[in-house]
Amino acid sequence: MLDSIATVSLGGTLREKLEAISAAGFRAAEIFENDFVSSDLSAHDLRLLMDDLGLQNIAYQPFRDFEGLKGHARKRVFDRAERKFDLMQEMGTDLLLVCSSTMKDAEGDEGRIIDDFRELGERAASRGLRIGYEGLAWGRYINDHRDVAAIVSAVDLPSVGIILDSFHSLSRHIPISSIMDIDPAKIFLAQIADAPLMNMDILQWSRHFRCMPLQGGLPVTEWVAALIKIGYSGPLSLEIFNDRFRSGFSKTVAIDGKRSLVTVRDDAHYLVGEETHLPDRSDPAIKFIEFSVPPGKGEELGKILDMIGFEHIGNHKIRDVALWRSQDDIFIIINRESYSFSGSFSLIHGDALCAIGLYIKDRKAALERAHHLGMAVAENLSDSLSGRSINAIRSVGGSLVYFLDEDVYTELWEKEFEITQKIKPEIKGSITSFDHVASIVGYDEFLSWVLYWTSLFDLEVCQEVDLIDPGGVVQSQALESKNKNFRLTLNGSLGARTLASRFEKKFLGAGYQHIALGTDDIFAFSKRMRKTGLPILEINKNYYDDIQARFGLTDAFIIELSDGNILYDRDSDGGEFFQIFSRAIDRMFFFEIVQRVGEYKGYGAANTQVRLTAQRRAGEKQYSEHI
Amino acid sequence: MLDSIATVSLGGTLREKLEAISAAGFRAAEIFENDFVSSDLSAHDLRLLMDDLGLQNIAYQPFRDFEGLKGHARKRVFDRAERKFDLMQEMGTDLLLVCSSTMKDAEGDEGRIIDDFRELGERAASRGLRIGYEGLAWGRYINDHRDVAAIVSAVDLPSVGIILDSFHSLSRHIPISSIMDIDPAKIFLAQIADAPLMNMDILQWSRHFRCMPLQGGLPVTEWVAALIKIGYSGPLSLEIFNDRFRSGFSKTVAIDGKRSLVTVRDDAHYLVGEETHLPDRSDPAIKFIEFSVPPGKGEELGKILDMIGFEHIGNHKIRDVALWRSQDDIFIIINRESYSFSGSFSLIHGDALCAIGLYIKDRKAALERAHHLGMAVAENLSDSLSGRSINAIRSVGGSLVYFLDEDVYTELWEKEFEITQKIKPEIKGSITSFDHVASIVGYDEFLSWVLYWTSLFDLEVCQEVDLIDPGGVVQSQALESKNKNFRLTLNGSLGARTLASRFEKKFLGAGYQHIALGTDDIFAFSKRMRKTGLPILEINKNYYDDIQARFGLTDAFIIELSDGNILYDRDSDGGEFFQIFSRAIDRMFFFEIVQRVGEYKGYGAANTQVRLTAQRRAGEKQYSEHI
Repeated sequence: MLDSIATVSLGGTLREKLEAISAAGFRAAEIFENDFVSSDLSAHDLRLLMDDLGLQNIAYQPFRDFEGLKGHARKRVFDRAERKFDLMQEMGTDLLLVCSSTMKDAEGDEGRIIDDFRELGERAASRGLRIGYEGLAWGRYINDHRDVAAIVSAVDLPSVGIILDSFHSLSRHIPISSIMDIDPAKIFLAQIADAPLMNMDILQWSRHFRCMPLQGGLPVTEWVAALIKIGYSGPLSLEIFNDRFRSGFSKTVAIDGKRSLVTVRDDAHYLVGEETHLPDRSDPAIKFIEFSVPPGKGEELGKILDMIGFEHIGNHKIRDVALWRSQDDIFIIINRESYSFSGSFSLIHGDALCAIGLYIKDRKAALERAHHLGMAVAENLSDSLSGRSINAIRSVGGSLVYFLDEDVYTELWEKEFEITQKIKPEIKGSITSFDHVASIVGYDEFLSWVLYWTSLFDLEVCQEVDLIDPGGVVQSQALESKNKNFRLTLNGSLGARTLASRFEKKFLGAGYQHIALGTDDIFAFSKRMRKTGLPILEINKNYYDDIQARFGLTDAFIIELSDGNILYDRDSDGGEFFQIFSRAIDRMFFFEIVQRVGEYKGYGAANTQVRLTAQRRAGEKQYSEHI
Repeated sequence: MLDSIATVSLGGTLREKLEAISAAGFRAAEIFENDFVSSDLSAHDLRLLMDDLGLQNIAYQPFRDFEGLKGHARKRVFDRAERKFDLMQEMGTDLLLVCSSTMKDAEGDEGRIIDDFRELGERAASRGLRIGYEGLAWGRYINDHRDVAAIVSAVDLPSVGIILDSFHSLSRHIPISSIMDIDPAKIFLAQIADAPLMNMDILQWSRHFRCMPLQGGLPVTEWVAALIKIGYSGPLSLEIFNDRFRSGFSKTVAIDGKRSLVTVRDDAHYLVGEETHLPDRSDPAIKFIEFSVPPGKGEELGKILDMIGFEHIGNHKIRDVALWRSQDDIFIIINRESYSFSGSFSLIHGDALCAIGLYIKDRKAALERAHHLGMAVAENLSDSLSGRSINAIRSVGGSLVYFLDEDVYTELWEKEFEITQKIKPEIKGSITSFDHVASIVGYDEFLSWVLYWTSLFDLEVCQEVDLIDPGGVVQSQALESKNKNFRLTLNGSLGARTLASRFEKKFLGAGYQHIALGTDDIFAFSKRMRKTGLPILEINKNYYDDIQARFGLTDAFIIELSDGNILYDRDSDGGEFFQIFSRAIDRMFFFEIVQRVGEYKGYGAANTQVRLTAQRRAGEKQYSEHI
């Protein structure tokens, strides 16, 4: 199937859209009429431009409210079609997308509609053109691809075919199995769009909320699999109407489009048991995180790591890089190198989480997959002492995701670092895992990051939640690997005054705002922190009154929680969650320490308003102390 | 009815919310539990703060999932309620809002629910507290205020009453007439929210899209009228969940809330034929517009007015203010005074539309209404030669709206200005009206401006439309007086790269981006412009091909349109619309010249993508010529 995208899916002028589409690796596009009508490119110029850009013009669309008319109105609509045929010949496409009528005045009589398409098909054929009929989900009479297929079959002309659109069919719950009844030669074009599952007016849903495959909840993979099964080999073309994509950067949206198509097609091949082109998705596990700090700095971060219970166990043999370790081999790196990736990262962002190290069983396969998905692979980042190159890909805010396999991982610390400290005996309440990392992304790029992570790794997309910040609403979504060794939250907010937005502004873009470290004994951890003096976010008393009433907790338990400023949650299956937040370093980055008991699955969303309000208070206090 | 607002309606911390509520003139508020739970104010401190702010605490809310439980769960929920009673007594409110259960485990048996409320009511009464029962639209068993009323009636305790909520009832189309069956003494609280008419999941609709009365489409005025009719005299409290309000400035939202309540209550009194407290809404007509320009500047603006056909007919007798006039007494003022409102306006915004002069039959009544609605009335702006003060109110971006009655209007020009030019003979294609003014507002403040204009004037709110800018989607809504002498469009966009957003950024806030002048002969106007040399926005050829195909226009007509860069639209009733756009002055402000033929009602939305794309091209060209 040829990858394609409709120009309406992107923002910008027609020229900008096509340039972005070509740059993203597409070799075909559909021209959306309004984009052409608004453009100063003539049909002839458009053909030349698309030739230059290596893009095949696979369709001109849409031609609306065609069928079921009578008398003068019918004559008029055929005249209009002829004008569009002229244009199509000039711009070099042979396919006109006719979408089903929504007009009150039109008639729904099938015989009349068949006659209309037969005449249009004959006229098109006489010019070497073709007509594709698409059933809009809100079409007045025709709103089901099965009816479209029946009409096309009755018309029975080589110049008249079906245009399928995953949104129009799946939004109306038309069984995917019905595709199996269609002759693939009769499908002229398959348009694809996903959408979040929403119970709302289909037209509004379609106009504003469509998204790319892997970003929504419709069974688009199964839908593509059905096309593969029947042997459809025509174009697969994204047609997305989404307000955020229109305001986003067209280049990013085009790259995401390509990434999404490559993935969904590959997933569909897998579903039908055919050979896939991409290596399988990997199952990642967070093994270390790395902070970049300007040379000579990082003292505060070191102090805090020390208080949390990390130990500075050694330094890089030739570079200004410190290795910290908790028990259970949880590593944190502080990188002070100025002439390196870390140096340029800290120049832009200050002290910041600049990389995540992921353990991946088949590192090479993961890298190959990333490469096929158009992700920027940073090769040979390290002129490693071990002689091994550590591979990484670019991620949020220019940070890196390192891919470590067994070999790299076991040798990394020994060969690269001079370990000076012996391992201390285990203590209670130490850090035993990376629970999750929390990233802040722009509201416009939220879906882009959903796609990034889920196209690359084998992750489950959790239910989106709205978090209430005193400055506005924050949209939050968690992505999790099956064994929970990788958990990441994406957080984006519309309001300019949320903690997330202020981070994004101060950080100069998207990045990681905090990391949650897991412990197996939050109370032991808490007691230790009161000795080490870790600055902890103070939680207000009202909160403890509330959870006591809500969960029926004992006074003694509440005192233990409130003494440690520990947040608490319990789910309906009895799973428990404990959270402690450190104060922010430089008002930017902070740590969360959590304990999960039983099968607790969430992230303490019920506590978020309390936490965000406490952080705001702490920020204000810090600010007023500062002045 | 006592005006109140629930703290959940605003952004900020609880303290900020209450301060904003008090500052907006409220004397009562409902405390939303999450706001209290997140706050560092103890219940006692909250009572002191609300006392200080002159706010009565009319309810603590919500208490969820109370009724229909058994055994241990039932005991637990009563324990939880007792804890909340403790809190309520400390914070000084006597009313707990209990919303209907959404729990799967709860039972819907009415007898059980009645028993639950009887016991809760007795417990509350023993402490001097009251229970208000509210039916959520998505309640599991109870989701209709008629059922709530029946249960409250069966409980038959003075401490148990009904809480009505306009959204919960109107979203489910429960007849307003059903309120007439309720004993007003049994209604403990009436909560009010409007919402745009959307066909979507009620819970999502409620959580994100509620708005204030006059900002949505629910029949909230009729709903309040029914409360008045039965003699309800308790609090009327706004309870709005809206993402934009949460990210907006709490002070503005509170002011809007008060404005909205005052208006809807007054409208409701009018509906039931009772005396109203506010003077009636006026019917405005645009009579002049005023530009502020820095001293010595404004030459380009003058040139353009001259080309359009305005005549510089005189100057202010003592100030640096020029008066321009078209035939039919359409006036434009260019104000170059530095020590005046205009001077400070131009200092911030540059050359800009700083005021609109509206003819209003009863100027004093309109001013009084504005005053009651909390609008900033700028008195005695002018130390007028005529001895009259011209009154004005503050509007978008700090601009002014002048109120002129017959007396002020007729004397304004004669007494204040030295008219030096005689009136020239009428010519074809001159400017004969102000068709509309187009304002750009922030996305967060869009609804605030809908409320501003519709609470003050007698305006119809037209259907919202989405305009496609190459940089993103622009939300646009027109407000029109009945006789169409006042038309205004509000435009707000989420994306940062639309023309609207760029205006807002460059202008440093909301303001007027263009004004549409009406002519009775667009072709005569167009021909004259080709002589005067008015720089006109160039429209691309594809557009004319498309409208020819779309409307079946003759070649000759198309040539006439395209030669004049005239945009064309036709509605289903045959009404026609013609538009010409001037190039922008300083890449900021532009003129539109329109002709309406027949009963054309719109604003040429179908042409907007073409126009916005052309403006983007023109801007880029200008920019590249500039460098």
